[in-house]
Amino acid sequence: MSESDAAHRLDASSDELDIAIETNLDEDDRLKPEFVSAVLDAVEAGRDEDARALVYPLHPADVADLIELTPEDRRAAVAAALGDLVSAEVLSELNDYVRDTVVDALEPAQLAELASELDTDDAVAIIEDLDKADQQAVLDAMEPEDRAAIENALSYPEESAGRIMQRDLVAVPEHWTVGQTIDYLRDTVDLTSDFWEIFVVDAAHRPIGTCQLSWVLRCPRDIAMTDVMKREQTLIPVDMDQEELALRFQKYALISAAVVDPAGRLVGMITVDDVVHIIQEEAGEDILRLSGAGDGDINEPVLDSYRARVRWLISNLLTALLASFVIGMFEHTIEEMVALATLMPIVAGVGGNAGSQTMAVTVRALATNQITASNTWRTVLREIRVALLNGVTVATLLGLGVMIVFGNPQLGAVIAAAMMTNIVTAGVAGASIPLMFDRFNIDPAVASSIFVTMITDSMGFLAFLGLATLAGLAG
Amino acid sequence: MSESDAAHRLDASSDELDIAIETNLDEDDRLKPEFVSAVLDAVEAGRDEDARALVYPLHPADVADLIELTPEDRRAAVAAALGDLVSAEVLSELNDYVRDTVVDALEPAQLAELASELDTDDAVAIIEDLDKADQQAVLDAMEPEDRAAIENALSYPEESAGRIMQRDLVAVPEHWTVGQTIDYLRDTVDLTSDFWEIFVVDAAHRPIGTCQLSWVLRCPRDIAMTDVMKREQTLIPVDMDQEELALRFQKYALISAAVVDPAGRLVGMITVDDVVHIIQEEAGEDILRLSGAGDGDINEPVLDSYRARVRWLISNLLTALLASFVIGMFEHTIEEMVALATLMPIVAGVGGNAGSQTMAVTVRALATNQITASNTWRTVLREIRVALLNGVTVATLLGLGVMIVFGNPQLGAVIAAAMMTNIVTAGVAGASIPLMFDRFNIDPAVASSIFVTMITDSMGFLAFLGLATLAGLAG
Repeated sequence: MSESDAAHRLDASSDELDIAIETNLDEDDRLKPEFVSAVLDAVEAGRDEDARALVYPLHPADVADLIELTPEDRRAAVAAALGDLVSAEVLSELNDYVRDTVVDALEPAQLAELASELDTDDAVAIIEDLDKADQQAVLDAMEPEDRAAIENALSYPEESAGRIMQRDLVAVPEHWTVGQTIDYLRDTVDLTSDFWEIFVVDAAHRPIGTCQLSWVLRCPRDIAMTDVMKREQTLIPVDMDQEELALRFQKYALISAAVVDPAGRLVGMITVDDVVHIIQEEAGEDILRLSGAGDGDINEPVLDSYRARVRWLISNLLTALLASFVIGMFEHTIEEMVALATLMPIVAGVGGNAGSQTMAVTVRALATNQITASNTWRTVLREIRVALLNGVTVATLLGLGVMIVFGNPQLGAVIAAAMMTNIVTAGVAGASIPLMFDRFNIDPAVASSIFVTMITDSMGFLAFLGLATLAGLAG
Repeated sequence: MSESDAAHRLDASSDELDIAIETNLDEDDRLKPEFVSAVLDAVEAGRDEDARALVYPLHPADVADLIELTPEDRRAAVAAALGDLVSAEVLSELNDYVRDTVVDALEPAQLAELASELDTDDAVAIIEDLDKADQQAVLDAMEPEDRAAIENALSYPEESAGRIMQRDLVAVPEHWTVGQTIDYLRDTVDLTSDFWEIFVVDAAHRPIGTCQLSWVLRCPRDIAMTDVMKREQTLIPVDMDQEELALRFQKYALISAAVVDPAGRLVGMITVDDVVHIIQEEAGEDILRLSGAGDGDINEPVLDSYRARVRWLISNLLTALLASFVIGMFEHTIEEMVALATLMPIVAGVGGNAGSQTMAVTVRALATNQITASNTWRTVLREIRVALLNGVTVATLLGLGVMIVFGNPQLGAVIAAAMMTNIVTAGVAGASIPLMFDRFNIDPAVASSIFVTMITDSMGFLAFLGLATLAGLAG
């Protein structure tokens, strides 16, 4: 949070603020339903001032939550009633889909003014979602300097470092001392306050070292910056994908990092607070992708969710047809012994779940860069060993159960063998299919599930009905 | 990264370091397989010095990766060969399971020395995993001061703020000026260098404000700290769960935050670099829990993985038996028309996938605190609307297909109606079951899947076979 939004709020003493927070938020920092209702009721009744008084003490992130928790058809009214409490910072905290509703109600000039108040990265996040015409209208309404920064950011690919970096940073020449640096910081008025490291650059503006503020503060004034700085730096190429840079921040525990252009010149800085939500998103989206739920955002328009999900259900329908075809090959066997039809979904279903387990583990390990060529084979072998143990246990239980219930040892043996086969197949497929996709640079979370399900379903029916036929069970 | 580990490595100029990084790491910051093999070969051949020379330039996080990429049975040998390159910081970066192997090979005295070099939070992370006897041995071998800090941390519940906070922080009295603060920082020798904010405390050591280092640096010396600091702070109670505090860091974009005891006194500080991996873990674990894959760590011993997963497969076996029982009720119908057996898994399977989609969306929204009582009902309704659209599309396709292939319009109508019923059921169950578990404070990711699968399986067979029987298809 910057100083500016603190000014937004009551200059409450710490105690007063604690009370405000206690009243409005539950133990998970979520706005209480009573509070949300109180604001909505006030707006409904035309008591805008009351609504504003309620919202005034909130942190911008909580104002954003309030708008998200407001039913869609009342959001524009609530935003209008709150007026300038829906600050630039609130906009930048809003969910993308919800922001669209709010932003659509604003004039380009208003939006341009709001965007000018933000760091470039937050302004870009708002402007990049507009359609081309609106984008241009907002840019035209901005000051030339702000416009240039945003146009520059928009020239980089979406989700790249160039889009999320901020251009306001502190860089000093390598020949400066600590004292010169401190004087520069004190004397330069329009410098950002949101920085945690100072970059030391050479004459070509290439970063040669980085210096935590605490080191500057703790050194005598006459020490050279090059003696304080750390030479090892983790540099971020300006075209690096946000997922990769998030992993890099995490791996090296970075607070901020310099962004460099292809010539190695310092062009921006990324701070960890802008990376944290990327880490959260990227880590959370695998679960949505594996199930084919698209963006999986509860604020997404229903038609968009439908389009994303139905595509996957139709693919699933096709793979189910394959399984159905496998069953069809054994119609004669089933006619002879209809109990097989009763039991066959067990083999397919439990196998499918064993496959999901292995796939989830493999997809997560790939997403967190834990698997390389050095341990690929070992990972597959490990999954096979787990599958063998699982297979023996589940097959034994199922086989004994079926033998006792149906009084048919042969049927018990057949279903046990089929279950064992399918769980091991699930282990091999669940581990190797994501690894294969990753090798070909295809997102394993998106592509794997449909194939693994297809294999465990078909194999389940094939093994069970095939073995039953071979064993002459239906004869 | 602290200053100390920089000293570990080559004092390379930026250019040299870039080359080293380029040689050892691939584009995803993972160690190249060639490099790993070179180190392992050197250790194998007894050329420890060569191995050390290779590893010397690596960042501690990469040394940790190297040990993780080493096959399990060779890890102790590699760690022994690398000697003090396996620094305290490397230990703190290691995967929990892998660390156990390495730590087991160390004497308590060695471990105590390594732990003393670390921040309390990292030392605790290593020590908390030891068994009681080893823990005591290590603590006994430590300096009294370090021991007290770690014993204090261990007195808080696992995964609470008290475990992950660091005790080294900078707090100044409220009557100080900026100049006094800077002098104190310069003159106090044994102060931590890893801090990003200065806490201002009252006489009872309660934090009354916080001050970014950049603000201190940019203010004249005679300004009072209370005029620079921000009064609104996000305080972390010492017993807060790590998942909640991670969400709080994320929501309010914190770099560091004060940890307070129940009396409101400042007892520690948490910095965002310690929170980032919690965010990653918590966001990533839902996918593992939904599939019943336990911890889902590829370094987990096979037997532990087996135990975690087989439990879930057996539960799944029981729910599959229920579905099997449903089918059994219609044995007579199937005998009359065996095509029903061929088609029934389609209805159950596609319904199951529709349920997974809704469940994944709901579980993620709950995990990121997006759902409260204010929008619960709206979220369920939204999922039902998506389910209706999905249902109509998939049911139409399937119904028409079956009608054409089997030349039986009635069969087409029956399977379409069953598919529609099951997809809508899946939508309702997939949304409401996780919400219900969350309401009762049960982790929805762990508990939901088994129930949703049970419902979509049973409903799929019941709707299809039941409707077929009612329609007199088998007559």
